[in-house]
Amino acid sequence: MVDIATRVWNHKWKIDPIVRSLIDTDFYKLLMCQSVFRNKPDTQVRFSLINRSQDVPLAKLIDEGELREQLDHIRSLSLTRGESTWMRGNTFYGKRQMFRPDFMDWFESLTLPEYHLERIGDQYELTFEGSWPEVMLWEIPALSVLMELRGRAVLGEMGRFELQVLYARAMTKLWGKIEKLRTVDNLMIADFGTRRRHSFLWQDWCVQAMTEGLGNSFLGTSNCLIAKNRDLEAIGTNAHELPMVYSALAQTDEELAQAPYQVLSDWHDEHEGNLRVILPDTYGTQGFLDRAPDWLAGWTGIRVDSGDPATAAETAIAWWKERGEDPTKKLIIFSDGLNEDKIVQLAKQFDGRCRVSFGWGTLLTNDFRGLTDGDRLAPFSMVCKAVEANGQPTVKLSDNPNKAMGPADEIARYKRVFNVGEQVAQSVEV
Amino acid sequence: MVDIATRVWNHKWKIDPIVRSLIDTDFYKLLMCQSVFRNKPDTQVRFSLINRSQDVPLAKLIDEGELREQLDHIRSLSLTRGESTWMRGNTFYGKRQMFRPDFMDWFESLTLPEYHLERIGDQYELTFEGSWPEVMLWEIPALSVLMELRGRAVLGEMGRFELQVLYARAMTKLWGKIEKLRTVDNLMIADFGTRRRHSFLWQDWCVQAMTEGLGNSFLGTSNCLIAKNRDLEAIGTNAHELPMVYSALAQTDEELAQAPYQVLSDWHDEHEGNLRVILPDTYGTQGFLDRAPDWLAGWTGIRVDSGDPATAAETAIAWWKERGEDPTKKLIIFSDGLNEDKIVQLAKQFDGRCRVSFGWGTLLTNDFRGLTDGDRLAPFSMVCKAVEANGQPTVKLSDNPNKAMGPADEIARYKRVFNVGEQVAQSVEV
Repeated sequence: MVDIATRVWNHKWKIDPIVRSLIDTDFYKLLMCQSVFRNKPDTQVRFSLINRSQDVPLAKLIDEGELREQLDHIRSLSLTRGESTWMRGNTFYGKRQMFRPDFMDWFESLTLPEYHLERIGDQYELTFEGSWPEVMLWEIPALSVLMELRGRAVLGEMGRFELQVLYARAMTKLWGKIEKLRTVDNLMIADFGTRRRHSFLWQDWCVQAMTEGLGNSFLGTSNCLIAKNRDLEAIGTNAHELPMVYSALAQTDEELAQAPYQVLSDWHDEHEGNLRVILPDTYGTQGFLDRAPDWLAGWTGIRVDSGDPATAAETAIAWWKERGEDPTKKLIIFSDGLNEDKIVQLAKQFDGRCRVSFGWGTLLTNDFRGLTDGDRLAPFSMVCKAVEANGQPTVKLSDNPNKAMGPADEIARYKRVFNVGEQVAQSVEV
Repeated sequence: MVDIATRVWNHKWKIDPIVRSLIDTDFYKLLMCQSVFRNKPDTQVRFSLINRSQDVPLAKLIDEGELREQLDHIRSLSLTRGESTWMRGNTFYGKRQMFRPDFMDWFESLTLPEYHLERIGDQYELTFEGSWPEVMLWEIPALSVLMELRGRAVLGEMGRFELQVLYARAMTKLWGKIEKLRTVDNLMIADFGTRRRHSFLWQDWCVQAMTEGLGNSFLGTSNCLIAKNRDLEAIGTNAHELPMVYSALAQTDEELAQAPYQVLSDWHDEHEGNLRVILPDTYGTQGFLDRAPDWLAGWTGIRVDSGDPATAAETAIAWWKERGEDPTKKLIIFSDGLNEDKIVQLAKQFDGRCRVSFGWGTLLTNDFRGLTDGDRLAPFSMVCKAVEANGQPTVKLSDNPNKAMGPADEIARYKRVFNVGEQVAQSVEV
């Protein structure tokens, strides 16, 4: 029996919105947003979406009108009562009232600022300008929208049956990965896949699969909406955005050299325990650690997000030892270009030497490689970054020169200030 | 939104019936039933269900009460108006009114006769006695019910998520096979998988997958209900049951030797074209063909259902040549123990030498091998056969001594009468 009312209702939708909630975003965005709201509320920033995969002609695949409809829909969203209750009342990382009342009051009345969209050749130029705490919230939904619209362009040409087989294959594939991960002792892993997910529904399924297949080894998800709906832990700490903007705001080379530590000093005031995780690679991991103040060695962990992960982990372990810390008490979070085999290998390699956990992104929530003719659903590499702060360009170096961003002269200046030598280039995994 | 009425209705069912229609059976059963109804309506037969896989303890897995409920439900079925209209009005093998009015009148008022169920050790003894045209209709539903109840016993212990992954895997597996079959030029294949299907819904999905994936290469399904619902051709001709019962009714060795030809003589009067397919292996293919009357060489094709399929096909081709027939005009139907690789291989081997088609059974509709822990959903070998006719035991030899059935002394007599020499034993594939 068809429920006629439901069917009619479903067909009344003008669009099928991709992002339906302001908390359909990564937890660390909200944490960072609160920090920025407190420490740098008036900074003016520009964020820009960059498709690193020029072979994916987004403007040919995605209709501009549909893209605008999706972005406009996001601008129509505001925090619902239930979402607000969850943020105010839930425990995050063991702490109540993680989000302060003044921040929540502001967030409850927020709608996202305008966007600027232009077609340049076969790509879209999508930028967001305004005050930092507002603009930064565009990053995750903008990425999800573009990734999912590109997927829909391909799915739209498939028959009902093909779609069923497609998802059957994707489920089979993911479950095979989970069965591999099950063999790892003491595994700790979280979903970090919101930004490059195949779709919201698929990410939601992936999270359920991880919950079902890995039990307590699955720590939770970076996606706040899914964490809320599925009663899971929301996971995440901080990102490159903070040192990038702080650095762009520096007036002198001396201030620039101190900027990444200033970020963590502000963070130190706000957070403790497992939220004290260093992301050291923005301007080169080795130099960052060498010059770091001793209080940073007291932090809980380090997140490895570029370069060769095992090398970076060894660097971290050596640094802790050098500063008199016990690495077995420390946490290393791997979050760059992971697949199930790398996870198994890294987990074994560092088991017993430090605590290890994984933030698994694209190949958890968007591994549609090989599932369609011409591989047109394969994930691709797209980022949405702060490119300017108070009129100054931002720079990112990372431990992989292929991930460097910013104007050439500024990159040179940052390399000099942060004393970054020869770097090993790595292909950028999605 | 939940449709409350639907949910309440679904929960009111006392059982989830496995067989919900008298035409949820193989097309050849109905064809043979009509033939028996015309030629041997008063023959008293006994059918018996035999589980060849003694390692599957059906009586431990399946509750006797549930089995009785399912069998009782089948006895409550009668032909619906729509089903009757389909049988009376549809075209089968290009012919209108395949089912004669007198047969339809009888079938419309039919309910299946009683069954006898007894637990013997870990197996069930399930037998059916009565007039041949009624009892014979138990074969397919009895097999489907036992196979699906065994499946449900395993599925009952699985979580919702496990079930989803299970069917995703089964879909992925079947679609992989279909992609292999797509590579075969001039493929002709039909679903013969009703009797050992995983479940009705799964068979229905498999048929849709074959339709979707193979297009015109998929000829149709032996299952009448699915053929009706999905607007496909109903496929099938005749089975061992006819020569087995005709032979048991023979009064002398001379009559016995003629019985298999008498079956086909009766069939010849009723059918033409693609329905004239010889099933020659009941008492040995070679001897059957050597002694066959010339008019049989004029028939359209031969079905290969035991022994080595390529050898049997060569035997058929040689026989046609010997009788002055052009094998390239003839049809060979392979229907025994097929998997996708065998199909591809046989299709290539005989392409251009004769017309080839495939009746694919168990590994189309029940290939759950390797999909659960302990492989507890793997198909197994179960048959439901005429074991007695008018008080005389039936015998089947086939081209594989492992498939022989009947009392030892009668097997010896049949071997003598049909001059069956040494046979090559083959493992019985499901």
